[in-house]
Amino acid sequence: MSDFIDLKGAEQSFGDTEAQREVRENDRNHVFHSWSAQGQINPLPVAKGEGARFWDYDGKEYLDFSSQLVNLNLGHQHPGLVKAIQEQAGRLATIQPSFANDVRGELAKRVVEHSFDGARSVFFTNGGADANEYAVRMARHHTGRQKVLARYRSYHGSTATAITLTGEPRRWTNGTLDSGVVHFSGPYQYRSAFYAETPEQETERALAHLEQTIQFEGPNTIAAIILETVTGTNGVLVPPPGYLPGVRALCDKYGIVMILDEVMVGFGRTGQWFAYQGFDVRPDLVTFAKGVNSGYVPLGGVVISEQIHDTFADRPFPGGLTYSGHPLACASGVATFDIFEEEGILERVRDLGERVVAPRLAQFAEKHPSVGEFRGTGLFWSLDLVVDRETREPLVPFNAAGDAAAPMNAVTGACKDAGLWPFTHFNRLQIAPPLVIAEEDLVKGLDIIDAALDVADGYYTGQ
Amino acid sequence: MSDFIDLKGAEQSFGDTEAQREVRENDRNHVFHSWSAQGQINPLPVAKGEGARFWDYDGKEYLDFSSQLVNLNLGHQHPGLVKAIQEQAGRLATIQPSFANDVRGELAKRVVEHSFDGARSVFFTNGGADANEYAVRMARHHTGRQKVLARYRSYHGSTATAITLTGEPRRWTNGTLDSGVVHFSGPYQYRSAFYAETPEQETERALAHLEQTIQFEGPNTIAAIILETVTGTNGVLVPPPGYLPGVRALCDKYGIVMILDEVMVGFGRTGQWFAYQGFDVRPDLVTFAKGVNSGYVPLGGVVISEQIHDTFADRPFPGGLTYSGHPLACASGVATFDIFEEEGILERVRDLGERVVAPRLAQFAEKHPSVGEFRGTGLFWSLDLVVDRETREPLVPFNAAGDAAAPMNAVTGACKDAGLWPFTHFNRLQIAPPLVIAEEDLVKGLDIIDAALDVADGYYTGQ
Ligand SMILES: Cc1ncc(COP(=O)(O)O)c(C=O)c1O
Ligand SMILES: Cc1ncc(COP(=O)(O)O)c(C=O)c1O
Repeated sequence: MSDFIDLKGAEQSFGDTEAQREVRENDRNHVFHSWSAQGQINPLPVAKGEGARFWDYDGKEYLDFSSQLVNLNLGHQHPGLVKAIQEQAGRLATIQPSFANDVRGELAKRVVEHSFDGARSVFFTNGGADANEYAVRMARHHTGRQKVLARYRSYHGSTATAITLTGEPRRWTNGTLDSGVVHFSGPYQYRSAFYAETPEQETERALAHLEQTIQFEGPNTIAAIILETVTGTNGVLVPPPGYLPGVRALCDKYGIVMILDEVMVGFGRTGQWFAYQGFDVRPDLVTFAKGVNSGYVPLGGVVISEQIHDTFADRPFPGGLTYSGHPLACASGVATFDIFEEEGILERVRDLGERVVAPRLAQFAEKHPSVGEFRGTGLFWSLDLVVDRETREPLVPFNAAGDAAAPMNAVTGACKDAGLWPFTHFNRLQIAPPLVIAEEDLVKGLDIIDAALDVADGYYTGQ
Repeated sequence: MSDFIDLKGAEQSFGDTEAQREVRENDRNHVFHSWSAQGQINPLPVAKGEGARFWDYDGKEYLDFSSQLVNLNLGHQHPGLVKAIQEQAGRLATIQPSFANDVRGELAKRVVEHSFDGARSVFFTNGGADANEYAVRMARHHTGRQKVLARYRSYHGSTATAITLTGEPRRWTNGTLDSGVVHFSGPYQYRSAFYAETPEQETERALAHLEQTIQFEGPNTIAAIILETVTGTNGVLVPPPGYLPGVRALCDKYGIVMILDEVMVGFGRTGQWFAYQGFDVRPDLVTFAKGVNSGYVPLGGVVISEQIHDTFADRPFPGGLTYSGHPLACASGVATFDIFEEEGILERVRDLGERVVAPRLAQFAEKHPSVGEFRGTGLFWSLDLVVDRETREPLVPFNAAGDAAAPMNAVTGACKDAGLWPFTHFNRLQIAPPLVIAEEDLVKGLDIIDAALDVADGYYTGQ
């Protein structure tokens, strides 16, 4: 291998108003943004990032408590990831999927080795949405069935099947693009759909509801159940004890494929390689993206059980993409495994989560009436903000926009003013910093949130 | 900017049987391949690539007449692309889509500047399939209509909407995942669906067929017509004079959005920035991927007209993805524009196509009875192989597999043995080398094809 030569970044242009003007101008003139009304946004030009921080062109620093889109697990500009990309770019940037390639095979091996018993192979994609598309396709061809059960309060991506699987408002105006999808409710005790009073009851009733849904939809018509292991954007909903094994049992009973979407929680977010490893459950298919390489190069994939792999031993899998197993992307995935081990990432996530975050959030809950509930694991937490603890009425209504969203915007604004980039969704302030964040930065960020919760408290109307 | 430091590739391991064994083993054990029966493939381990060539681990050299999956327009390891990636990796590998970013904005500007009159903005995706998914979504929301017309003999990608748009066998076992898609036939004079005897007739009748389809499906229900500008994998079908302007006129007449899929032909393949620039037509949406950065980093996108952009000025576009406008990908896109200009790529494509390829294929047609027709433009050509010029019976049946595909496998095998990696589909030997291929390599490759056509001639049964 060649020696590694550190390519230093371009000189940063803090205070360079000309550079800033140009970035803004090109963006507003020519970049069409995801999920946005193009005339109503004013994207912040970001000049530079390092670790858990990034800076705008005025030199204002932000602590990133959102890990960008919860993908930047190893932070900005991790030298090990940068090096892996620069070296692979110099060796062989790309090769088509039908060849065998060293880093592609190496990454597949590492992913399988860190996966469930009986995991056999990996189908690589470009991101999370297509990983879910192909997982569903495998399940359909494996079972010969067409329906897929997915949960409300979920996000699975935005291509046609993935957006239909999604159980939140981003699906609404897209219609039912994939007619085989049926939604059901999962456990969420703080806002229980099942009138449960204990986690045990929530599990039991959520499983009964799922089994009833299976019965009513027709067990023999259902190819797969897809779940985020820990629901991410829609609330950091950690499954109560027994829920995931219970879903597994229903899948076994009815011959249904169990797909776990680990796009957001895989690769360390919860202090495990894959979040399901904390819940005593063996899935059939697991989708991943984001954390596999911290999003430095677009990459996603599906981990496939032996059984499902074998379905396609003599029958072609009817799907594919030009960049499946892209070497540049895979090289940064391989480096991710090395870095996780060298830096003891999983251990530090568990430690920081238990020792620093959880106790501090417990303090918030005592101090701030607006904190209705806090929940989470590892470096993945959510504050469920309310205007009344008794009624649990959320700080802003479900899917609030415009004026109705003002209280959350005020909380978000307070965070940003104080130099913290938060991860919010509806009435929730969520916590998902890079897993490499220094302990003092984590504390500093939590201090900022502490202060921002005073703003939330200002809207409190309860006793 | 930092000085550029060339990171040389790893030492190549020609003849290193241990390395080769490991690549094969990891691949066969753990990599799940696109479109394949996993138990029936034996992917070639590729050790190295440079320009229009790549090498296996035994040091065997291949001239790449397929540009990988027709994406490697600037060839392997182009120093300008490698440099752009290494520098951007050292500056800022990734940033989420909702920020403004310098290279993202710069690439959007360049793409728009090289696009049709009235082009306004670019929505970036990870590849070709999702570019088509989002173009269709824009058209649906823009028109308030749901149906999309797509052609038979087309490939538009493999996610749910894209595979349903696709008009070839890869769609079949996937069912109709997007229920809004209707297929129609386009012009293909050599195998005319319209009994046409001249290109003018083919155009006229193909347009009449399209208008009838619009009438029968209901003009007010049709959001978009999507076409590959020059059909790629399914035959290098160059539209006859007047066809694309005719489609435009029908779109105008019925308020339908015209989407051109330039994933395979955009960025120089036909000697234009975008292939439609050779056909006097103004689309509303254009999808691209592959050539935008030769596939060095996964990237695709949609070029959006002012009118459609404005539809989403105050109404959110309901779609998005984590890696939209990925800086590492965009940096290699910006470099692509620079390299095309510095190296006069478009001029050389037109020159080589007209001066070297076309006359040589005309010779093949004289010499080899199996060449039923040759057609193409720029560095994109197809030999339509037949067993009988009178009946035009193809060398192998449509969608042939197994024994039925033996004649084409023999032709392919002859190419590979002689050190040429061909691009074949059904009964067609297609020609799509990197646009940077040296003239002598182009001639050398054509010599190999010349010899392989002797093999095809062996199956000829006509007069
Ligand atoms: C759980 C989950 N699944 C799927 C996706 C979609 O991933 P992508 O944006 O890469 O398509 C996301 C993205 O946020 C996600 O959080
Ligand atoms: C014309 C066309 N459209 C779309 C696609 C799909 O692109 P991708 O494989 O990047 O999803 C392809 C891929 O070959 C293509 O040739």
